[in-house]
Amino acid sequence: MSATTPLSVLALSGGVGGAKLTLGLSDVMDSERLNVLVNTADDFRHFGLQVCPDIDTVVYTLAGLSNSEQGWGLADETFHALKGLERLGGDTWFQLGDFDLATHLWRSERLAGGHDLLQVTHDLAVRLGVHSRIHPMSADPVSTLVCCEQGELPFQHYFVREQCAPSVTGFRFEGIDQARPNEQVLALLREQPLAAIIVCPSNPFVSIDPILQLPGLWTTLKESPTPVVLVCPIVAGQALKGPAAKMMTELGVPVTALGVAEYYCGRYPGLLNHFVIDTSDAKLAADIEQMGLRVTVTPTVMKTRQDKAQLASTVLAVAAEG
Amino acid sequence: MSATTPLSVLALSGGVGGAKLTLGLSDVMDSERLNVLVNTADDFRHFGLQVCPDIDTVVYTLAGLSNSEQGWGLADETFHALKGLERLGGDTWFQLGDFDLATHLWRSERLAGGHDLLQVTHDLAVRLGVHSRIHPMSADPVSTLVCCEQGELPFQHYFVREQCAPSVTGFRFEGIDQARPNEQVLALLREQPLAAIIVCPSNPFVSIDPILQLPGLWTTLKESPTPVVLVCPIVAGQALKGPAAKMMTELGVPVTALGVAEYYCGRYPGLLNHFVIDTSDAKLAADIEQMGLRVTVTPTVMKTRQDKAQLASTVLAVAAEG
Repeated sequence: MSATTPLSVLALSGGVGGAKLTLGLSDVMDSERLNVLVNTADDFRHFGLQVCPDIDTVVYTLAGLSNSEQGWGLADETFHALKGLERLGGDTWFQLGDFDLATHLWRSERLAGGHDLLQVTHDLAVRLGVHSRIHPMSADPVSTLVCCEQGELPFQHYFVREQCAPSVTGFRFEGIDQARPNEQVLALLREQPLAAIIVCPSNPFVSIDPILQLPGLWTTLKESPTPVVLVCPIVAGQALKGPAAKMMTELGVPVTALGVAEYYCGRYPGLLNHFVIDTSDAKLAADIEQMGLRVTVTPTVMKTRQDKAQLASTVLAVAAEG
Repeated sequence: MSATTPLSVLALSGGVGGAKLTLGLSDVMDSERLNVLVNTADDFRHFGLQVCPDIDTVVYTLAGLSNSEQGWGLADETFHALKGLERLGGDTWFQLGDFDLATHLWRSERLAGGHDLLQVTHDLAVRLGVHSRIHPMSADPVSTLVCCEQGELPFQHYFVREQCAPSVTGFRFEGIDQARPNEQVLALLREQPLAAIIVCPSNPFVSIDPILQLPGLWTTLKESPTPVVLVCPIVAGQALKGPAAKMMTELGVPVTALGVAEYYCGRYPGLLNHFVIDTSDAKLAADIEQMGLRVTVTPTVMKTRQDKAQLASTVLAVAAEG
């Protein structure tokens, strides 16, 4: 673990895919200088508790507690409370693990006690031994609603209960117009030069868009002198995890790295400087460069810890080129 | 399991000791005709969840799910969420089991959804296979505060966190003046003759008093034609479970069956008709009879299921004498 840069890094992340790259980053840089801006539009209340799936995935991953086989939740997790809920005929569509439940109980109590999500998330990370700074995208509530033919579904209902089966026509981020971007991240962007702004290989529509759609955020990132590097979440026409490819198909976005680049450049013109694609998509590099992006072709599939560190090093090197 | 009576029975109960006798009653009578009026003044919110210790003890016991060795909680219980809370530095003084947590999650969600505690408790019992009717003493919140030299402590703080160490000077039942007694139990008392009203061997101060202090309740019981039989919670100068003896000492009440009888007769004159004491206290029978009570001397220590059924049969027989 070498400190390749004395400057801070800001990584935008959703859940599993983003968490993998943040783990790689924390391995190859001074982990205390890694700032992760995490999507909270998936957050929801379940049994009266505040559940923050993406924050928890990032925190558990950086704490070395995640279930790396399953891709979500905690290693050595048990589901006894869930079995109890099943016995009572309660809702069991969301897989509430017992250790995970402790996080939700603890967080909900602290939120009810008047602490905001920024402070509570910081404390959660510290108590689980995470040295990087985990920043919820906002302390204000934002809720992703998935627009389908049958109407709008709260994200977790679409994602977990309906297992992404409904065909998607769009998304709505309830509350986003009133949500203030995380002020600590705005201060970070204002006050110091950064080594890189990294958009992790997370779902463009439901992980990264909610962050970028916060009032003023994407233009602030765009205006920053720091290079913005996106790691493409689509590899060889497939999403490695989750419904990104299915959503792209349903929305008429080509399910390729080029489609991803076009989506981001169309929606956030001038934001991205670098685009990192997998070696299997090398033939698309020229077309993406045509859009004014610098393209790096490198293995982006992160199976091992070494894969993650290698990709993280490449991304930091790309950003260092300016 | 024989139906010794076609009439309904009403039993007033706190937690462990009362639950034992209700289990015996459910074994020796038509269990569907057993109505248990349970103390809820121990109820409290923990991590935002509504915890009802006495209701749960009675329900778990009648459902055959209780941890009979430990005296509270569920058999085969695990404490993984609690370990998670410990890891986060959260409160762990209340032993939240994982299966038990499911009950609190389920109940809290239903209460938040607009159901009242009467309906939620009924559903809980039904879903766990209990045939008897479990009645919270009130749908309205009542909270026992334990008065000590250092001030007032919420009951669970005194009972669990402080392990009953503070010396008690009295009790206050916050909210009791506004609490309406369980209307289903009032209807039961109005509409049909009962075989017996049984005061279970529960703590007089913190289990039975909150029930009897509900506006109008003890006088309604007193005016009922049904015999009221109390099973003494003090045996040979000791409480079999919990802090009753310690509290009696601190309050200057003699720690004997006679002390218990004097306490009830002084506070609720004319309420009790029968007083059931343990064989080890046989010598006190004459003094208790002097107070106008009919006394039955019988083994009251309930270790085995057979003990519980035997005591229950005796209590029903005593009531049947009129």
